Amino acid sequence: MQHGVSLTTAVQAYLFLENRELIEARPKSGFFVRSQFANRALAPGTSRPGPSATLVSVGSLQSRIFDAVRMPGVVPLGAGYPGPGNLPVTKLSRIMASVSRNSGARGINYDMPPGAEELRRQIARRSLDRRLNLSPDEIITTCGGTEALGLCLRAVAKSGDVVAVESPTYFGVLQQIEELGLKALEIPMHPDDGMDLDALERALKSRRVAACLAVPNFNNPLGSLMPDANKQRLVEMLARRDVPLIEDDINGGLQHQGDRPRVAQSYDTEGRVLLCGSFSKTIAPGYRVGWVAPGRYYDKVKALKLTSTLATGSLPQLAIAEFMANGGYDHHLRSLRNKFATQIRQMSGAVVESFPTGIKLTRPTGGFVLWIELPKGVSALKLHGIAMAEKISIAPGPMFSATQGFPNFIRLNCGHPWSGEIERAVGTLGRLVKKLM
Amino acid sequence: MQHGVSLTTAVQAYLFLENRELIEARPKSGFFVRSQFANRALAPGTSRPGPSATLVSVGSLQSRIFDAVRMPGVVPLGAGYPGPGNLPVTKLSRIMASVSRNSGARGINYDMPPGAEELRRQIARRSLDRRLNLSPDEIITTCGGTEALGLCLRAVAKSGDVVAVESPTYFGVLQQIEELGLKALEIPMHPDDGMDLDALERALKSRRVAACLAVPNFNNPLGSLMPDANKQRLVEMLARRDVPLIEDDINGGLQHQGDRPRVAQSYDTEGRVLLCGSFSKTIAPGYRVGWVAPGRYYDKVKALKLTSTLATGSLPQLAIAEFMANGGYDHHLRSLRNKFATQIRQMSGAVVESFPTGIKLTRPTGGFVLWIELPKGVSALKLHGIAMAEKISIAPGPMFSATQGFPNFIRLNCGHPWSGEIERAVGTLGRLVKKLM
Repeated sequence: MQHGVSLTTAVQAYLFLENRELIEARPKSGFFVRSQFANRALAPGTSRPGPSATLVSVGSLQSRIFDAVRMPGVVPLGAGYPGPGNLPVTKLSRIMASVSRNSGARGINYDMPPGAEELRRQIARRSLDRRLNLSPDEIITTCGGTEALGLCLRAVAKSGDVVAVESPTYFGVLQQIEELGLKALEIPMHPDDGMDLDALERALKSRRVAACLAVPNFNNPLGSLMPDANKQRLVEMLARRDVPLIEDDINGGLQHQGDRPRVAQSYDTEGRVLLCGSFSKTIAPGYRVGWVAPGRYYDKVKALKLTSTLATGSLPQLAIAEFMANGGYDHHLRSLRNKFATQIRQMSGAVVESFPTGIKLTRPTGGFVLWIELPKGVSALKLHGIAMAEKISIAPGPMFSATQGFPNFIRLNCGHPWSGEIERAVGTLGRLVKKLM
Repeated sequence: MQHGVSLTTAVQAYLFLENRELIEARPKSGFFVRSQFANRALAPGTSRPGPSATLVSVGSLQSRIFDAVRMPGVVPLGAGYPGPGNLPVTKLSRIMASVSRNSGARGINYDMPPGAEELRRQIARRSLDRRLNLSPDEIITTCGGTEALGLCLRAVAKSGDVVAVESPTYFGVLQQIEELGLKALEIPMHPDDGMDLDALERALKSRRVAACLAVPNFNNPLGSLMPDANKQRLVEMLARRDVPLIEDDINGGLQHQGDRPRVAQSYDTEGRVLLCGSFSKTIAPGYRVGWVAPGRYYDKVKALKLTSTLATGSLPQLAIAEFMANGGYDHHLRSLRNKFATQIRQMSGAVVESFPTGIKLTRPTGGFVLWIELPKGVSALKLHGIAMAEKISIAPGPMFSATQGFPNFIRLNCGHPWSGEIERAVGTLGRLVKKLM
C-alpha cells in the first residue's frame, strides 16, 4: 500500500468522496474500485455443472443459515437480506400504524386472492419500469417471494419433472425443487451475462424440460445481468418448445446505476412467462409480501395460493401500497441502490484486503451479495463451520447447486450497512481461509 | 305459531332474554331452541363414505366460494369465517398501531422460524386449557392454519400415500391432499361424536395409511365433538401402528358452553401428534397467523416452513401476542363463544322456518357453521348456482368429500352477526330449495 493506508481504508475514503456526488448522478461509479481489484482478484469463470438432471439435496444447510439470523451477536453475512439500517423503518412503521387505525374491518378481515387492489395497482403502475404494461388483474399477491416461486413451480411442473435452473442459483429454489420431487437441471452461468443460452438450447434438445427458472436480473449469488438480447432469445427459445419460464425478478429493481433492467416477460407474447416480485429485498422482509404475474397460469396459481396460505396478510399489503403511493418509495429505492452499491464495494475491498491472493470475486452490477471463489482445495463447508464457531454466518457454495458444486465458493451478504463489526468479521474470515489452505 | 309470531322472531326474542344472563354463566343454554327444532328437523345420521381411497377432486368450487368473499353485496354464508362485527377490530387495530410504532427494526425484519417468541409464549401458556404443557420451543408459527396443515401433511406423507380423513371434512384440506398427490380415505363421522373409530380401525387393518387427519374438536362442517375417551383411543390406535395424527384444533376454543375441550395430543406420549391452531377464527383472519406443535416432526416442519413462505409476518405475530398478554383476549373469546352459539341458533331457527319439512340440521356444540341435509334429490351444487345468482354464497356438500358425497347437503356460515339481510337470504334459500324439490 504505497500511501501507508490499507486498501480497505482507501476504498472507504474513496467511497466517502464518491458518495458526496452520488446524489446527482453516478456515471461509471465503481470502476475505480473495480480496476483496483482487477489485479488482485479476477472474476470467477463460467460455471461448469455436470450434464445430468439430479435430485437436489441441499440438506439442512438452509436451516442453519436462517437460524443464524435469529442468533444475537452473529455477524449476518450468511442469509441474503437487507439490514434494517438500510430500510425505511420509521417511515413504514408510521404508515403501518396509520393504515391499521384507518382500515377498520378491512385490516382484520381476509384479503382473498388475488389480494389488495391498492397494492396490485401500484405494482401494475410500476411495471412500466420493467417494460411491461401489467394490469392489476394480472397480479396475485403472495406471502413473500418464496411463496410466489413455489406456487409457480407447482403450477407448471409435477413430481418427476425436470426444471432447468441456473448454476449457481438461490438455494431456496433448490429446496423447493427437492421438496416437490422435481429434478434440477443445472445450466452454466457466466458471472456477468447470466445463463449460457447455448447450453440451455442443447439441454432442451436432449431431454424433456417442464419449465425453466431463471433470474435474468441480478442472479443470486452471482449478481449477473442478462443482456436484453439474451432475454429475448431465452423467451423465444422456450416458446418454440412450449416450456414456461419462471422469472425471478426479486432483485430486478436493485441496479447499482442507470435504468431498471427490463424483464424477460416483456418479450413474452403468449403468457408463458410467470414473473415473480417481492418487497422483502427493498422495503420490509418481515411484512411477507411478494407477488406474481403468472400469465396464462393465472387461474392455476390463484387456486394454488388458496391451498398454500389462503390469503396474504391484509395490513402489510395496505401499508406497502400506501408507502408506494405516498411514502417516498421511489426516493427510498434510489437511495437503497446507492447503499447496496457502496456496501458491495466496501465488502469487496475488505475481502481483497484480508483474503489470500488468488481468490476471485464477482463484480455485481446490482443486488447486494458477493460471490467469492476461494483457492482450490479450501472447503467452503468447513469454512462455514469454523466461521460459525467465531459467530460469523456465511453461505457456503454447495448450497447454491443441486449437485453440491462450488465446493470452494462462498456468498457474503452485503445488505447491512458497513460497520467495524463486519470489517473485523471479514478479517477473521480471511485468516480462517488461510488456515484451511 | 301459536302466539302469532314467526319462529325466527320467537327464537330471537328468546336469545335476547337469554343473552342478558350470558355474562355470568349459561348452563344448558340452547336446550330450549334445540327442543323446538327436535320435532321439525332431525340431526343427520352417521355418514357413509365409500370404502376406497380416492384422488380428491373438489374442482374449482373452492375458488368460487372464496371469490364470493370479495364480492360486494353477496351474503356471506359460503366461506367459513367470523364476520368483522364479531372481532375486536378497534382494539386490535390500536394494538397493531402501537406495536408497529414501538417495534422499530424488529417489525420490519424477518422473524425466522420458529417465529416470534412473545407469541409462542402466549400459545404455550394457554396450552394448559387444552390439557397440554407445551413449551414455546415446541411451537412454530405459520401463515395461518392453512399453512400449518399443509406443512404437517408434507412432513408425514409423500405423493401416492393414503391419508385417513373425516367425512365430511373441510374442503381446504381435501384440496391440499389432492395437490400433494395423496389419496384421501374417508372415515364415517357421527354428527355428535365425530370419527367412527371402529371404521378407522378396520381401515387401518386393511391398508397402509401414512397419516390420519382429524378435527376432534368441532369438525368443520359438522361441529361434532369427539368424547375424550375416543380421543385417547384414537391416539393409542394410531400409535400402535406408528401412524402420525394431524390434529386440526382450529375451532377447539369455540365451545358454546363449559370448558374448552382437551386435545387428542394431550394423550400422546411419543410426539406422534402434530397439533395445528390458528387465530383466524377468533381474532383476525387477515393477520394470517397460525401455529403448529409438530411433536417429533419439529425439525421437518421447520425446514418445510422455510421452503413454503420462509417466515411468518412479524408485526401480526407481535400484535396478537400483545392482545393475548394485555388486550383482553380471554374476555373476547368468552364473548365470541356466546355470539357464535347465538348465531348458530338464530340461523337454525331461520332455516327451520324457511326450508321445507324433512330437512335435517346439525346441533353443533362449538364453532360457527351449520350443516344441513336437504331432501333427497335436491342438488346442493344446483342450489349453489342459483343462490349465487341471487347474491347468496353457500358451500355445497360435495366440496366436503373426496368422493363428491353429500350431494344434498349444504354448509351455512354463521360467523356473522345476525342481520335482516342474512334472515332474508335464508328465506330466499328456503324458496330455492323448494323449487329444486
